[in-house]
Amino acid sequence: MTDDPLPALTGPVEVVGAGLIGTSIALVCSRLGIEVVLRDASEENIRTAHGLGAGRAATDADRPQLVVVAVPPARIADAIVEALGRTDAVVTDVGSVKAAPLAAVTPRVGAADLARYVGSHPMAGSERSGPLAASAALFDGRPWAVTPHGSADSHAVGLVESLVLECGAAPVRMGPTEHDRAVARISHLPHLAAVLVAGRLATAPVEHLALSGQGVRDVTRVAASDPALWQQILEANSEAVLDLLAEVRADLDALMTAVAADSGPDLVEILARGNAGTAAIPGKHGGPARPTRSVFVAVPDHPGELARLFGDAGEIGVNIEDVHIDHDPGRPVGLTELVVERGSAERLLAALESRGWTTHR
Amino acid sequence: MTDDPLPALTGPVEVVGAGLIGTSIALVCSRLGIEVVLRDASEENIRTAHGLGAGRAATDADRPQLVVVAVPPARIADAIVEALGRTDAVVTDVGSVKAAPLAAVTPRVGAADLARYVGSHPMAGSERSGPLAASAALFDGRPWAVTPHGSADSHAVGLVESLVLECGAAPVRMGPTEHDRAVARISHLPHLAAVLVAGRLATAPVEHLALSGQGVRDVTRVAASDPALWQQILEANSEAVLDLLAEVRADLDALMTAVAADSGPDLVEILARGNAGTAAIPGKHGGPARPTRSVFVAVPDHPGELARLFGDAGEIGVNIEDVHIDHDPGRPVGLTELVVERGSAERLLAALESRGWTTHR
Repeated sequence: MTDDPLPALTGPVEVVGAGLIGTSIALVCSRLGIEVVLRDASEENIRTAHGLGAGRAATDADRPQLVVVAVPPARIADAIVEALGRTDAVVTDVGSVKAAPLAAVTPRVGAADLARYVGSHPMAGSERSGPLAASAALFDGRPWAVTPHGSADSHAVGLVESLVLECGAAPVRMGPTEHDRAVARISHLPHLAAVLVAGRLATAPVEHLALSGQGVRDVTRVAASDPALWQQILEANSEAVLDLLAEVRADLDALMTAVAADSGPDLVEILARGNAGTAAIPGKHGGPARPTRSVFVAVPDHPGELARLFGDAGEIGVNIEDVHIDHDPGRPVGLTELVVERGSAERLLAALESRGWTTHR
Repeated sequence: MTDDPLPALTGPVEVVGAGLIGTSIALVCSRLGIEVVLRDASEENIRTAHGLGAGRAATDADRPQLVVVAVPPARIADAIVEALGRTDAVVTDVGSVKAAPLAAVTPRVGAADLARYVGSHPMAGSERSGPLAASAALFDGRPWAVTPHGSADSHAVGLVESLVLECGAAPVRMGPTEHDRAVARISHLPHLAAVLVAGRLATAPVEHLALSGQGVRDVTRVAASDPALWQQILEANSEAVLDLLAEVRADLDALMTAVAADSGPDLVEILARGNAGTAAIPGKHGGPARPTRSVFVAVPDHPGELARLFGDAGEIGVNIEDVHIDHDPGRPVGLTELVVERGSAERLLAALESRGWTTHR
C-alpha cells in the first residue's frame, strides 16, 4: 500500500501441505536458492517432494520468514492459526476462497498475529493432484490474487507479493470478499457448468459419445477434478456461488422459453450475450487477444522431421505462437498445426510449400 | 448395409454453399484431383473459394456424381429438394440436425429421388466462418455421422461414406432421429452451457475478469460462435434440446439444494457424476485416452531454438504427443510444454537437462 520496494524473499520458506500447489511453490523457491522446509500429514508426500528437489522436512528449530499454507480448504483456517502461533513469520494461504478462512481465523488470534496473515490465491492448477503433478512452471504468467484484510501489515502484503513475482505470476490485489465474488463467477460457475454437462454424458449411449468433438471435450475438461476438493471449495463460497447459480437458473428458464416458443430474436440475444462474454475475457497475458491463423503441415512420424519443420519455420522468420500435434499412432504421417499471427500465414504457407512441405489451409 | 466395397468418388462433386465446411470439403476433393464445382448465393464466396484452389463456379452443363449441400440450416431442405430436382446425383447435406430437413424434404420429392438423398454431419468446425477459414485438414481424424433414412439407396449411402473417408474422417452410421438426440447431448447442450457461463461474464467487473484462468477459457470457447447459425441449429433440434435442458434444470436444482443445505455427500455425488462423464468421452482417435505428462522447457525467443529443441527430442527418441508454446512478447524466454507418454517423461527431462536445457517439472 506504499510505493516502497517489496521486501526481498530470502527464506526460509515453510510450505505446509506438499500437494500440487505447495510442492510447485517449493520447487520455484528451491530453484531460486531459497531454503524450503516442508510439513505434511503424509510422510510420503514429504519424501516425494524432497525427491523432486523441493526442500526438506521441517524441524522445530526452523525459523521461517514466510509460511505458505497449501492444505485442503476445510483445514486451512486451523493451519493458519497454528502457523501464526508457532512462528513469527508472515503467513499466507493459497486456498480458492478467502473470506471464510479469514472469518474463522480472526477471533482465534491476537491483533498483532492477525496482521502477519495475508491470504492469496494463484489462478493455476491441474485436473491432477499431489506432489508428483507439481511443476515450477505452474504459475508462469498466471494471475495470483493477493487479498489483504483491513488490518494486514504492509510488510506482510509486500512479502506475499514478492513470492508471487518470484513464481513468475502476476499479483492482482483485491479484498477477500471481492475475491470470492470474482472466483464464483470466473472459476466456480464454469466448473459447475462443466460438471452438469459432463453429468449428462455419464449415462449416454456409447454410439452417441462416438460423435464427441473438441467442443464437448473443452467444455467438460475441468469436471475431471477431485470431487472432495471441490465440495470444500463450494461450501466455503456457498453464498456467492448460490447467487450466481440463481442468475444462471433464470437465464436457463429464459433460454428454454425462447427455444420452446421458436422465438428467434430472443434466442439470438441470449447467444450474442455469450459472444460478448467470451470477448470480455482478457488475452492470455493480460493484453487483448491477437488475431491468429492456423497453418497445417503434414509431418512424417519419425524423429527429426519436427526439428526440420521448426528449423525451416525459423529460417522463414515467422513467429510461431502455438503448436498442436494431432498424433495418431495408426498413421505414418501426423498433422502439425502452427498458430501464427494472421498476417504471416500466407507467407509461411508459401515458403513451407517451396521447401517441399505438404500444407493444408 | 452390404459388405460390398464402397463406390469410388470420381466426381464431379458439386458443393452448394462455399462457407467454412463446404469450402473445406471442396479443398479436400480438389487436392485429390476430383473436379469440384461450386454454387453459392454470394459471388464473392465463390471467387474466394476458387482463389484458394477449391474449384470453379458450376454451370448448367455440369453433371455431378455427388452434390454436397453446405448452406445454413434454415435453407438446407430447399437446397436438397432443388439439387434432387436439378440433377440425378447422390445428394448429401452436412447440416448439424438431420430429422427436420428429412421431414421437410420427404413430401416434396418422389420416392426415387428421395432414395438418392443421404444426410450426414461432420463433427468439425471452428468459431470462425466463411471460405477463408476453410482447411483441407478440418476433418482429419474427426467423427462424421452418416444418417440414411429407411428408404435410402445403399449405393448412395456408400458414396457418402466414400466422401467421409476421402476427407480423412471416421464415418459413424446412425438414424436421423438418433443422431439428433446424440448431438443435442454432445454438442448442443455443451454449447448452451458455455453460452450461459459466458453470458454471466459479459457484465462482470473488469477486476474480476483479471483472475480468468485456463478453465473459464476452455468452458466458454465455443460460445464465441455465430448466434444466427446456432439459432437455426437449436430451432431445428428444439425437441431433443428441450428434453436435455429440462434434465439439466433438474440437476441444477439438486445442485443448488445441495450447496444451500451444506450437504457434502450430495454435492460429492453430483461432482463425481461429472468425473464419470469426462471419463466416458472416447480418446481423441476413438481409442482410450492414454496417460500423458507435461515437460516444460525454457526456450529463448529467437529463431532456431525451437528447431534445436525438437532436434534434441528427436535424438533422445521420445515421442511427443502434443506441444504448447506459452509465448509472451514481453519476455526473452518462452516456456514450451512438451506432452509425452507418462512413462517417458523422466527420461526426456534428464536427457534434455544433460544437453543444457532448463526444464521444469
